[in-house]
Amino acid sequence: MSFNKITEDLFGKIESLIGKENIIVEHADMERYSRDETEDLQFYPEIVVKPVSAEQISLLLQLCNEHNLPVTARGGGTGLSGAALPVHGGVLISLEKLDKIIEIDERNLQATLESGVITQVFMDAVAEKGLLYPVDPSSKGSCYMGGNIAHGSGGPRVVKYGTIREYILNVEVVLPSGEIIWTGANTLKNASGYSLTQLMIGSEGTLGIITKMVVKLIPRPTHDVLMMASFPSNEQACSAVSAIFRAGVVPSALEFMERRGVEWVIEYDHIQFDLKDGAAAFLMVEVDGNNMDVLFAECEKINEVLEMNGCLDVLFADTSAQKDDLWRIRRVMPVSVKSNSIYKEEDTVVPRAELPRLIHGIKEIGGKYGFESICYGHAGDGNLHVNIIKGSMDDNDWTNKLKEGIREIFELTVSLGGTISGEHGIGLVQREFMPIKFSNVHLDIMRGIKQVFDPKGILNPGKIF
Amino acid sequence: MSFNKITEDLFGKIESLIGKENIIVEHADMERYSRDETEDLQFYPEIVVKPVSAEQISLLLQLCNEHNLPVTARGGGTGLSGAALPVHGGVLISLEKLDKIIEIDERNLQATLESGVITQVFMDAVAEKGLLYPVDPSSKGSCYMGGNIAHGSGGPRVVKYGTIREYILNVEVVLPSGEIIWTGANTLKNASGYSLTQLMIGSEGTLGIITKMVVKLIPRPTHDVLMMASFPSNEQACSAVSAIFRAGVVPSALEFMERRGVEWVIEYDHIQFDLKDGAAAFLMVEVDGNNMDVLFAECEKINEVLEMNGCLDVLFADTSAQKDDLWRIRRVMPVSVKSNSIYKEEDTVVPRAELPRLIHGIKEIGGKYGFESICYGHAGDGNLHVNIIKGSMDDNDWTNKLKEGIREIFELTVSLGGTISGEHGIGLVQREFMPIKFSNVHLDIMRGIKQVFDPKGILNPGKIF
Repeated sequence: MSFNKITEDLFGKIESLIGKENIIVEHADMERYSRDETEDLQFYPEIVVKPVSAEQISLLLQLCNEHNLPVTARGGGTGLSGAALPVHGGVLISLEKLDKIIEIDERNLQATLESGVITQVFMDAVAEKGLLYPVDPSSKGSCYMGGNIAHGSGGPRVVKYGTIREYILNVEVVLPSGEIIWTGANTLKNASGYSLTQLMIGSEGTLGIITKMVVKLIPRPTHDVLMMASFPSNEQACSAVSAIFRAGVVPSALEFMERRGVEWVIEYDHIQFDLKDGAAAFLMVEVDGNNMDVLFAECEKINEVLEMNGCLDVLFADTSAQKDDLWRIRRVMPVSVKSNSIYKEEDTVVPRAELPRLIHGIKEIGGKYGFESICYGHAGDGNLHVNIIKGSMDDNDWTNKLKEGIREIFELTVSLGGTISGEHGIGLVQREFMPIKFSNVHLDIMRGIKQVFDPKGILNPGKIF
Repeated sequence: MSFNKITEDLFGKIESLIGKENIIVEHADMERYSRDETEDLQFYPEIVVKPVSAEQISLLLQLCNEHNLPVTARGGGTGLSGAALPVHGGVLISLEKLDKIIEIDERNLQATLESGVITQVFMDAVAEKGLLYPVDPSSKGSCYMGGNIAHGSGGPRVVKYGTIREYILNVEVVLPSGEIIWTGANTLKNASGYSLTQLMIGSEGTLGIITKMVVKLIPRPTHDVLMMASFPSNEQACSAVSAIFRAGVVPSALEFMERRGVEWVIEYDHIQFDLKDGAAAFLMVEVDGNNMDVLFAECEKINEVLEMNGCLDVLFADTSAQKDDLWRIRRVMPVSVKSNSIYKEEDTVVPRAELPRLIHGIKEIGGKYGFESICYGHAGDGNLHVNIIKGSMDDNDWTNKLKEGIREIFELTVSLGGTISGEHGIGLVQREFMPIKFSNVHLDIMRGIKQVFDPKGILNPGKIF
């Protein structure tokens, strides 16, 4: 790929398209647009633009396509794979000004919104109408709905309510040619040709710029119960996960956490939590519904399963303050790890009954390559976030030797029926590992699809492939 | 497109690949492969092959690709859009011998099976393990799982459990080049590049031949309750549909039927059913779960909503025999209509609260063009099957004038936020209507994707576009 630099003339054209007040050209003012939440990576664009409409983006993309300028779209900047980083410079489109919830349609249980709406803002707005949008990434307080689509983002409640693929009905996309299309229809079912809606989900800004979406909503359950169980080993906690489903219960969340992760949260956030001796790992299990008797019966079943899998004790959160405290432990974990050490995070996912073998293997690989890890994640989906801690590893090993260890982790993941990302995407940092999962034939098909949408390759170059 | 005929030499090569016992070359023996369930269309292939493995299909596709022979894949032959008809002749691949359920993995709540497994056979097999695969098209007794993927097929329970897109985790596909790939991973979440799994769903055999799949299963609910409500008008029945969800209940099925459809079922199948005077339309509402108290509470809420929307009476089915009888009315409806008159079926879908306007509009359009219709379908999804009855319409009007009426129906559907097929697919018969929903830009992207998978266009030519 060879791209042009933005000339003085093009700066002027972009400014007149987007407006002086919505562009940044000073290097010093771009710092926050040069990073996301991925490790310590940093790349500066040549210009940051904050368009206010799909029409502005359309004109901008036509210009960039004509002049061969790389374009990177950015949502809330919470990505964990570097997908929003402008590695080739060029134009960074921040979608922060496309922040309107256009309609919450209570008749159809659907909402139409712009792609720069913060996920939590949207969830709160539909909650006010007694409705639920259940796809809640840990970063929901700052990530954008458009970014969630672009990355196929998940969250704890996917285990019961399904992935984002089930909730995004229709997407407005600006293509590199400047054409604006809606990918689908505002319907719960659609068997009318290839699903470009599904193709946009997980496409990481490489096929088009998402500007609006129509989202399916569901009635909001009225009650929930949260349990926290401790186990003497990672493997026992992980074994309990699949056993819960086999007992006929589908929890609304089922999260795994290693002891050290909880210890670091307590240090970082001064949360009160009684970390029992001998507890090596924890499961948080939530059930929700409209009837407390049913939920108690489900909790009883879950409790039996937990005990059969060797759990040490089970804590029930009754009040919403207690629930918030427990959830806080899980939600603060990523930032606690980050604040404690240089780290790398891998987003492994396997069929859920393979979790014990996965975590056992990760620790073995860590032993072999001399790294420690803290694992936590959406165990109900088989999705384990592996946080590799630099600790006392020397810089050379960290930069070079570690890569082989990560490769082995992904090889293990794939050998267990899994893949190299469950919900963070490939972006910049995982792309070198794609051949572990995908054959050349498979990758060539993906590249072919990219070519159909973006013949000159201006959209988010350097990502996925 | 210009294809070659199969030469004597190629017949010989195909025979030696697939085996004499698994091919049909006599025109007279091909009758059942020349039709599906779409109106009275009939197209003969030059040869029918019944491969026993993906490897055989791989060698066959290489041969067909090299010699420019059209290839059409066929599942159970229950399609309603003509997608399995070999309109360009050539090779018809029947997947009937790929009929093995390879594994029902109770640890992971997943199953691996071949694409020629009959949907009902699969559902029964997982039910024996206490599990549920909920995507149940009306044709489940004879359609194949591979065909269900190819068409994005639905069924009554999609309204609660989600579409087939949520259940198909991974698909083995033979490409026209002969390459065999698995499109995804055996995981509930996957954010690793473009989803070829989702692209295969609804691709109607135009991108590759589906040979195996990995399917998500869920715990089976232990109880259900079925209600049948009658209404004095179509519009009142349709209005009740969205009101049920707004009351906070998600039924496991919510089906609409017009009176005349029920009358024809009674005639055709001699079912006992008390068709009250003044009942113009019916809703079947099912709820399921693990607790009868909860289900009764939901039924009470539903009953209130039905009454507020003017329902005449509500029948509760208590025994499984009563439930089977009511479900039979709905399931026999397609064949009752078919046996009564020449007809055309359109698979409209809109946001569910727009159903009253859709059905009102359909009847108006019928008045204008002089046709009658019987409507029924998965109202909870906004999916209405419009059966246009030839009745006394003369042949010329049926063949020519009617097309304008159908066009108006689809224009109405699209104007209400809907699309031209909810679950039957585009196939042969709907493709002329694609431009009502899709711009040229959109269609060109679909054609571009087709080109990536199938550069010579040998797979199911003449479909979708």
